[in-house]
Amino acid sequence: MTVVVIGTVGIDDIETPMAGVQGVLGGSATYACMAARHFAPTTLTSVVGDDFPPAFRQQLERLAIDLRGLAVARGKTFRWGGRYHANLNQRDTTFVDLNVLRDFDPQVPRHATSGSYVFLGNTDPLIQLRILEQVRDPRFVVVDSMNFWIQSKRDALAGVFRRASVVVLNEEEIRLFSGIHGLPRAVASLLALGPAAVVVKRGEYGAAMVTRDGWFFAPGFPLHEVVDPTGAGDSFAGAFLGSLAECGRTDPEALRRAVVYGSVAASFTVEAFGVDRLCAVTRADLDARFGEFHRMVAFA
Amino acid sequence: MTVVVIGTVGIDDIETPMAGVQGVLGGSATYACMAARHFAPTTLTSVVGDDFPPAFRQQLERLAIDLRGLAVARGKTFRWGGRYHANLNQRDTTFVDLNVLRDFDPQVPRHATSGSYVFLGNTDPLIQLRILEQVRDPRFVVVDSMNFWIQSKRDALAGVFRRASVVVLNEEEIRLFSGIHGLPRAVASLLALGPAAVVVKRGEYGAAMVTRDGWFFAPGFPLHEVVDPTGAGDSFAGAFLGSLAECGRTDPEALRRAVVYGSVAASFTVEAFGVDRLCAVTRADLDARFGEFHRMVAFA
Repeated sequence: MTVVVIGTVGIDDIETPMAGVQGVLGGSATYACMAARHFAPTTLTSVVGDDFPPAFRQQLERLAIDLRGLAVARGKTFRWGGRYHANLNQRDTTFVDLNVLRDFDPQVPRHATSGSYVFLGNTDPLIQLRILEQVRDPRFVVVDSMNFWIQSKRDALAGVFRRASVVVLNEEEIRLFSGIHGLPRAVASLLALGPAAVVVKRGEYGAAMVTRDGWFFAPGFPLHEVVDPTGAGDSFAGAFLGSLAECGRTDPEALRRAVVYGSVAASFTVEAFGVDRLCAVTRADLDARFGEFHRMVAFA
Repeated sequence: MTVVVIGTVGIDDIETPMAGVQGVLGGSATYACMAARHFAPTTLTSVVGDDFPPAFRQQLERLAIDLRGLAVARGKTFRWGGRYHANLNQRDTTFVDLNVLRDFDPQVPRHATSGSYVFLGNTDPLIQLRILEQVRDPRFVVVDSMNFWIQSKRDALAGVFRRASVVVLNEEEIRLFSGIHGLPRAVASLLALGPAAVVVKRGEYGAAMVTRDGWFFAPGFPLHEVVDPTGAGDSFAGAFLGSLAECGRTDPEALRRAVVYGSVAASFTVEAFGVDRLCAVTRADLDARFGEFHRMVAFA
């Protein structure tokens, strides 16, 4: 089964209280693909400018990510800068240069439009809806979004959520979308729109998933040092979807395993700046940490 | 095996953004005993004034809590007032009238001084040390503390931690005591003092426990409404210790089960004001929710 990722590919400047990097490969689709490729054939759909460094393209190709959906447009590649606060739980966007993303009208490659596992990275919900029209009969659709779209295009976003299999948001975003403070009721109002599951991202506290069968909790992996949280959510979504595509199932047991693989991928991502760690990690590394998650929650 | 709880018994005024109660039974020892009594014979050691309402004493007696260690001193019972902020994660102490607690010199009943499971509730670490001198050969000692003592009597507190089996603190307190921000290293510095385990209280995110065998995580139980967080930590400690006393073991498996029973007790406590819910809950209720915790973290 194929994973199809639609999102951004860009060049990032990242600053933490400890250090910083400039001009590194980033973007939601990049992180999601780099996590998903461990589990299933992965197709990236995005756009870059004609200045996109060949080394970055090669980096993606070396990981066997299918780039037939990566358009190259005249102009500059999307650029983003972020600066993290002292505790790394909050960040400011220092700049956003949309560049070629301004006219982003993603074309999902024809070979990937049917029966696939789709990740719709955080972007304008109107674009997310257009993509869903291209992808006929997707097997499973995971959707990400953010405060900006919840506040500016709530109705369109609700339309996306109605067609999603799984909605992935953080606690603050779920409260904002639902207008309900208590998380169980806020999540229930999201589930009422139709998705089979809502995944609640909780940063260092891990992730929760709510389905009609109840709650599932995966802890955050206890890391000695978080170097750079960028891409944690996108790599979570990529591994989550990849794990489902690999086993070809979306029952509660498969969804729970997917949440843990998502948590595993996110925990590696944040161990280094940008995609450095995620890029280097092996499937054996992922599986070993999957086993550690098992041991961290077992009781009799 | 007997559980011995040393802490406060008092009369509380509690205010949340939704409602409030005045003059209700409270105190760390009250909550801890009410949770521990489900699992093992429980002895309360504290002091109240001669104004302590007979109804409160009867309430404790009806739950079969041994009050031979509850001294009655001339004067007024300890009183405390707390006001919770909007998200219930923070609170202000609106007043503290120590009253008879000012000269608290707890005398652990002789029948409970040897071989017992001891909870030292949050109080002056110099008093905690005096208690540890009375309790000969305790089987297991769980210690709670707070920012105030970490800042004002750090050395005495380190002395208490050296004699503790388990230290129970929240994340902020662990960082403050250790002077280390990263939680894994901060916890490791606490373990280096000698305790077999450190339990990290994380409020709505549950609890983590670190032993020399590694980390264990229990999620917070997803509640539709938290009514009043008062006593969550003390009832956690009471059920944690009770569970160990019941099975007579303190190996890693028993400790993990104890963390879950602690989380179960805390989750009931916060469902109503003061001790109302904790007082009414049955062992069958605790066991049913224990099973729910199992289902909430299981994956294959």
